[in-house]
Amino acid sequence: MADGICILGVDPGSRFTGYGVIRGDGEQWQHVASGVIRSTSGDFHARLRAIHAAAADLFIDFEPDEMAIESVFVSANASSALKLGAARSAVMCASFAFATSIHEYAPRAIKLAVTGRGSAEKSEVQHMVKLLLKAAPARLPLDASDALAIALCHAHSRGARSAIGRASA
Amino acid sequence: MADGICILGVDPGSRFTGYGVIRGDGEQWQHVASGVIRSTSGDFHARLRAIHAAAADLFIDFEPDEMAIESVFVSANASSALKLGAARSAVMCASFAFATSIHEYAPRAIKLAVTGRGSAEKSEVQHMVKLLLKAAPARLPLDASDALAIALCHAHSRGARSAIGRASA
Repeated sequence: MADGICILGVDPGSRFTGYGVIRGDGEQWQHVASGVIRSTSGDFHARLRAIHAAAADLFIDFEPDEMAIESVFVSANASSALKLGAARSAVMCASFAFATSIHEYAPRAIKLAVTGRGSAEKSEVQHMVKLLLKAAPARLPLDASDALAIALCHAHSRGARSAIGRASA
Repeated sequence: MADGICILGVDPGSRFTGYGVIRGDGEQWQHVASGVIRSTSGDFHARLRAIHAAAADLFIDFEPDEMAIESVFVSANASSALKLGAARSAVMCASFAFATSIHEYAPRAIKLAVTGRGSAEKSEVQHMVKLLLKAAPARLPLDASDALAIALCHAHSRGARSAIGRASA
C-alpha cells in the first residue's frame, strides 16, 4: 500500500457513474485510477446492482480513506431525482462496509475549487484536473475527470481545514 | 426453516421504512414478522446506513425468497424524490448479496389487491391485512401493515401467474 491519503471521488448517475482515485500527502496529489461505471443495460434493479457491485470493487481495490461525492443539484424533475438518489445511495451503501468517511460538495464548489470559476465548463474542469494531478492520463472521459475534480475539491478542502487546525492549535 | 415461500414486503421512506415478512404455500399466508425501521437521527448518510443495515439484518434473519416493494408514486417534489430514491436503493442494495428477486407494485395495485378498492385508506388496508394473514398481531403500526399489504399483493400476483402457468401448460 502506498503512503498518503487515498480519496475516491464519485460523480453518480443512473447510467454513467464517473469515479476517480487520487493519493497524496496533502500537498501533491497523484492520479491512481479513474473511469466510468456503465449501467446502461437491464432494468432499474439490474442497473443499481451494477453500480453497487462496481463501487464495492473500488472500495476493495483501493481502500480509499475518504470518499467525496457531488451533492445534488435539484433542478431535475422528480422522476430523474428518484433515479439519481438511488444511484448515489448504491455507491454510499457500498462504502458502509468500510471505514471510509463521506463528504459532499456542491457542483459549483467543485468547479470553483479546480478552475477558480463556479460556472466552468466540463472541458475546463478536465483541463485543470490534468494540470493539477501528477500522472493523469492523457485521455479521460468527462465523467471520470468530473469525479477526479470532486476528489481534488475534497483534497483542497481537507488541506485548508487542516491548515486552519494547525494555525489555531 | 419453515416450509413454503417467504416474502418480504417493504414500504421504504427516508425516516420510516415499514417491513413485513409473510410465509405461505400459495394459498394460505401467515404473518412471520413486521415492524418499522426508524432512521430519524443523524445526517442523511447515517440514516441511509441505518436503513441499509436494518434491511441486511432482515435478509439474514428471514432469508426471504422474494421481495416486494412499492413502486414510486412520483407526485413528490424533486428533493423528496431524491431521498425516497436513496432509501429504496439502500433496501435493494441490501438484497443484492442474496438470491432474493425484487418485484414492484404501484400503490393503487396494492390497495386494490388487499381491499378491492384502489383508493382505500391506510386503516382499511390494515384491517384487511389482519383478516387475510394468519397470526397477524393485534397491534400493527401503519407502516408495517402497508408493508404486509405489499407482501400480500405480491403473494396474490405470483399465485395468479402460477395458476395461469398451470392452465396453459
